Amino acid sequence: MIYLDNAATTFPKPESVYSEALNCMKNYGANPGRSGHKLALAAGRVIYETRENLCKLFNIPNPMNIIFTYNATDSLNLVIKGFLNSGDHVITTSIEHNSVIRPIKSLEKIGVENTIVKCDENGILNVDDIKKAIKPNTKLIVTTHASNVCGAIVDIESIGKIAREMGIAYLVDGAQTAGVYDIDVQKMNIDMLAAPGHKGLMGPQGTGILYIREGLNVKHLKEGGTGSKSEELTQPEILPDRYESGTPNTPGIAGLNEGIKFILKEGIDKIRKHEEELTDYLINGLKEIDMIKIYGPKDIKKQCAVVSINISNEDSSEISYILDSVFNIATRSGLHCAPLAHKTLGTFEQGTVRFGIGYFNTKNDIDKVLEALKIIVSQIK
Amino acid sequence: MIYLDNAATTFPKPESVYSEALNCMKNYGANPGRSGHKLALAAGRVIYETRENLCKLFNIPNPMNIIFTYNATDSLNLVIKGFLNSGDHVITTSIEHNSVIRPIKSLEKIGVENTIVKCDENGILNVDDIKKAIKPNTKLIVTTHASNVCGAIVDIESIGKIAREMGIAYLVDGAQTAGVYDIDVQKMNIDMLAAPGHKGLMGPQGTGILYIREGLNVKHLKEGGTGSKSEELTQPEILPDRYESGTPNTPGIAGLNEGIKFILKEGIDKIRKHEEELTDYLINGLKEIDMIKIYGPKDIKKQCAVVSINISNEDSSEISYILDSVFNIATRSGLHCAPLAHKTLGTFEQGTVRFGIGYFNTKNDIDKVLEALKIIVSQIK
Repeated sequence: MIYLDNAATTFPKPESVYSEALNCMKNYGANPGRSGHKLALAAGRVIYETRENLCKLFNIPNPMNIIFTYNATDSLNLVIKGFLNSGDHVITTSIEHNSVIRPIKSLEKIGVENTIVKCDENGILNVDDIKKAIKPNTKLIVTTHASNVCGAIVDIESIGKIAREMGIAYLVDGAQTAGVYDIDVQKMNIDMLAAPGHKGLMGPQGTGILYIREGLNVKHLKEGGTGSKSEELTQPEILPDRYESGTPNTPGIAGLNEGIKFILKEGIDKIRKHEEELTDYLINGLKEIDMIKIYGPKDIKKQCAVVSINISNEDSSEISYILDSVFNIATRSGLHCAPLAHKTLGTFEQGTVRFGIGYFNTKNDIDKVLEALKIIVSQIK
Repeated sequence: MIYLDNAATTFPKPESVYSEALNCMKNYGANPGRSGHKLALAAGRVIYETRENLCKLFNIPNPMNIIFTYNATDSLNLVIKGFLNSGDHVITTSIEHNSVIRPIKSLEKIGVENTIVKCDENGILNVDDIKKAIKPNTKLIVTTHASNVCGAIVDIESIGKIAREMGIAYLVDGAQTAGVYDIDVQKMNIDMLAAPGHKGLMGPQGTGILYIREGLNVKHLKEGGTGSKSEELTQPEILPDRYESGTPNTPGIAGLNEGIKFILKEGIDKIRKHEEELTDYLINGLKEIDMIKIYGPKDIKKQCAVVSINISNEDSSEISYILDSVFNIATRSGLHCAPLAHKTLGTFEQGTVRFGIGYFNTKNDIDKVLEALKIIVSQIK
């Protein structure tokens, strides 16, 4: 199996991710932050260490400002709904995932206005358009760091600068880039960062992260046991407890910690360079094949390791199905939970066949993809 | 290490739980319900099979009415906040966990009334008091199936009958009983059932479940990618997608499936009988030791495998600390995230030392606990 669905979840993970998740379950599978016995303390320690390693990766000043969630969708909902109130205005883009668009649209009914800034037909955002969309009641800007459909990278540093100058909070969805691209929350003026643990950060599924800058008032959406201030009937205000109710996914977080340690050891530049090379190699190869339409920037300086294509007007699901069943190549087809991105790219009806390249893919994988596509095209002709 | 903190999370788990979570991560660690390739389909299948096995365990008619969440707190918040609106009245009890009490208290600010029915000093609920608390605007009754502090069992079947007769919805928190006590949602008229995957169901942490009876209108609290109706900017209405946004904890659920299969194979009666025997043995042994106060019903027909004690007026944390550090016995001390339960039992200041017995505990474990307590008491005297 050639796995090219890394944009959905990275696979495989580093061996240490598997072994530590297992070690946690088998040897310290207790409830962290509640009881005081040795196993519970060991579980609490690995969770704290993971916060510290995330701080290193994203240059976050305080580990207590990192919140563990179920997935990036959970993180994004928490911030979007916890930060915006009736009368506020939020700006986002037309290449966002439904995990951003659907919560924003749902807030319309409580009187939160939104502006969805249109990207061009390659999915590229003009940062000036964000600036132009700012209104007196704009409280939040939300953008992805890169499109999950066509890979187009958003200039988050420039947006962060604008947001800070205008006193507007900035939330970045790092679903396609965290662990691969350099994200420095301080330098880039990112107030809130949401990311899945199971994509570029190489952790197991069931893990999401959220950074909230000190001093921002984000309401909690859930209350429950936090292991702190148990005597009170209201949720404690301290971070991260305010947002972390109930038992966390300790084995998942222990695995995630190993994923992050792998990234820190390997070096994020090396990881990105490898993915850029393969992406470039794939795009150039695709250009040589008849009937193939490639979407997005087609320039690795403007595009992460996500490449969407179609073959003429063929159904994208059909092509993905053939790639899987005949050639043992795993891709994803359809709308990728981002309908506005497809309207932007002009692929709303057809969807796309998406190749999500990961750090463990090889040039040989890409060769086999190109070979398979050539055969498919030759049979369609 | 003698682990007696099973009320927080069961440990160890059956070997098959570890091996399947690992197998999932290593061999089919793809994103379920999104892509159509072989690995994604394998991931989707194990999730569906888990729904089916939960149906067998709880006599739930339709697997699609089972929602996977992050933990029981997540499940409880979803129902309590998604079902209750301004002007509604909810009834609960004084032995609930903060995962029930805190969300209910938080709804006061949007005009949801509540009545917290007081249990007696042993944590026992008089079902008639629930009936007496019903008002014309009562929309929901929420009770735990058993106290996480003193083990007192609530007669959920009688409450279910009252609720059904009065046309009121009934939500059961099965955190201390699911997987050990027989819960039949149809026979017991349970409309919604919340449970953690990592306690009696023997799955890994990071898993929670929620059953919502067909036809109940529970709002979703989160929106995002569901892999279904991707073309729409609003959350799909179909279950379970309406409540399951973003990537689930597939390895956790795969492990949970094995936990449930273990329970189905072993037989829930055998599991409960074992826990009842050990609980009875512990309670009787404790009664023989000087200076020990035992809280709760002290009758295994009225009490699950949770036993709370204090030694005279000694600090509960200190006793737990000695049990762990000197005798290698893991317990939990303090308020156990249930302040009202402690007010009910008269232990709000002192907290309690809690023994949470699990299926893998033995009589020998209990003997060692009794021996350790005798030594501690003799040194305090």
